[in-house]
Amino acid sequence: MLDYHEESIRVRYQETDAQGVLHHATLFNYFEVARVEMIRSAGYSYRELEESGLMLVVSEISCRYFLPARFDDLVVVAVTTVKAKGARIWHEYKVTRQDDLLVEGESVVACVDQTGRPKPLPKYLRMV
Amino acid sequence: MLDYHEESIRVRYQETDAQGVLHHATLFNYFEVARVEMIRSAGYSYRELEESGLMLVVSEISCRYFLPARFDDLVVVAVTTVKAKGARIWHEYKVTRQDDLLVEGESVVACVDQTGRPKPLPKYLRMV
Amino acid sequence: MLDYHEESIRVRYQETDAQGVLHHATLFNYFEVARVEMIRSAGYSYRELEESGLMLVVSEISCRYFLPARFDDLVVVAVTTVKAKGARIWHEYKVTRQDDLLVEGESVVACVDQTGRPKPLPKYLRMV
Amino acid sequence: MLDYHEESIRVRYQETDAQGVLHHATLFNYFEVARVEMIRSAGYSYRELEESGLMLVVSEISCRYFLPARFDDLVVVAVTTVKAKGARIWHEYKVTRQDDLLVEGESVVACVDQTGRPKPLPKYLRMV
Repeated sequence: MLDYHEESIRVRYQETDAQGVLHHATLFNYFEVARVEMIRSAGYSYRELEESGLMLVVSEISCRYFLPARFDDLVVVAVTTVKAKGARIWHEYKVTRQDDLLVEGESVVACVDQTGRPKPLPKYLRMV
Repeated sequence: MLDYHEESIRVRYQETDAQGVLHHATLFNYFEVARVEMIRSAGYSYRELEESGLMLVVSEISCRYFLPARFDDLVVVAVTTVKAKGARIWHEYKVTRQDDLLVEGESVVACVDQTGRPKPLPKYLRMV
Repeated sequence: MLDYHEESIRVRYQETDAQGVLHHATLFNYFEVARVEMIRSAGYSYRELEESGLMLVVSEISCRYFLPARFDDLVVVAVTTVKAKGARIWHEYKVTRQDDLLVEGESVVACVDQTGRPKPLPKYLRMV
Repeated sequence: MLDYHEESIRVRYQETDAQGVLHHATLFNYFEVARVEMIRSAGYSYRELEESGLMLVVSEISCRYFLPARFDDLVVVAVTTVKAKGARIWHEYKVTRQDDLLVEGESVVACVDQTGRPKPLPKYLRMV
């Protein structure tokens, strides 16, 4: 259940730029929202993970833009967990608006403690 | 010397919105940059204040918008300390682009410790 | 029906700052989301208003902060239309988290055309 | 001269997150600032390019994070033009803080007109 999640996000005015479209850096915030909501949808909480002293930090991220999103568009951010072992999770993302594929992306997040040292993922985040 | 500071800020593309202008909420980030740089210009450091266990938190803020700023404009954010006593500092702001007054604002920040309790301002931040 | 709306917003990680709380400037983005959704909830669309050649631009805004919001908090942004006549709308905001009042604010937005000239509010946005 | 530029950027408070570090998505704003300033440093203006009816839009971007930046850090964003032909420019980025390499990234931007159609780069942006 932690291997796929779809999150609907409405494009905010503040997230657009003078080209009239969603600013490209904002997609990474949407990816982050989708990761957090994927954990919640499985009955866990990223906030509680942080309160337990662990954090997930982004170590690699990338994005390819095919079509722009605009103010007020309702886009769907689909996140897939590709691999999750040791201290790292690999995710893939697709952002769509109805039948249009707007964006594809990938990220690697690492589980670390408050000093930044890698720590094994909690069991519910691992994928075997 | 902690009573007035001018900071030049170049409007970034990401800070604009689909109306083609600087998004109104971004002005508050500019005010914040001006406060931080005012402290630096007087030979102190807001970062060191935080490292000492104190923080300045915004308790009131307001802004009036007269003219829009656009991408790549070089604006000047002038901050004036109006009053600074007890645990609080009152600032006023004017944002200009050459002869044009774009924005006026005010804020009150409070000095608190890490539990959020008000603490007296450090001496160099007080104004008598 | 355009005189009151409540919008639930989940605090995103990117919206927090190093003090561990929702950054104060982000509240103005939340106010904006609430205004847009108030229009939608009444069966209209701010996007269509812009497509018709009119825009609402913020001319005054203010906020008082009582308690911080944190990552993952689900806050409710309540927006009330206080007055809406001529080319301007006056709104008030209250942001709560369960029984806690976090923030209060006010704004004035002006209806303008694409050259920035004030234009009468469309009928459905007026309040008599 | 359009093949390399270094831009110093001071990390703003609003750009940090609750992990106490620069939020990972902000790096893409820094990359953008560095691209704009590279054009200016060569005596041209990205704003004028847009005013002429052309835009550069990001079509691919990626980033790898090695060390976090913190509030008030002065980081150097070095951008290198790797290739610039047809309608596209390939850039590489390195973000450093003194001797520490914090971040590496790459992007592809495409030159388009206001309808989104690819257009040949203006001569001063081409690299032979």
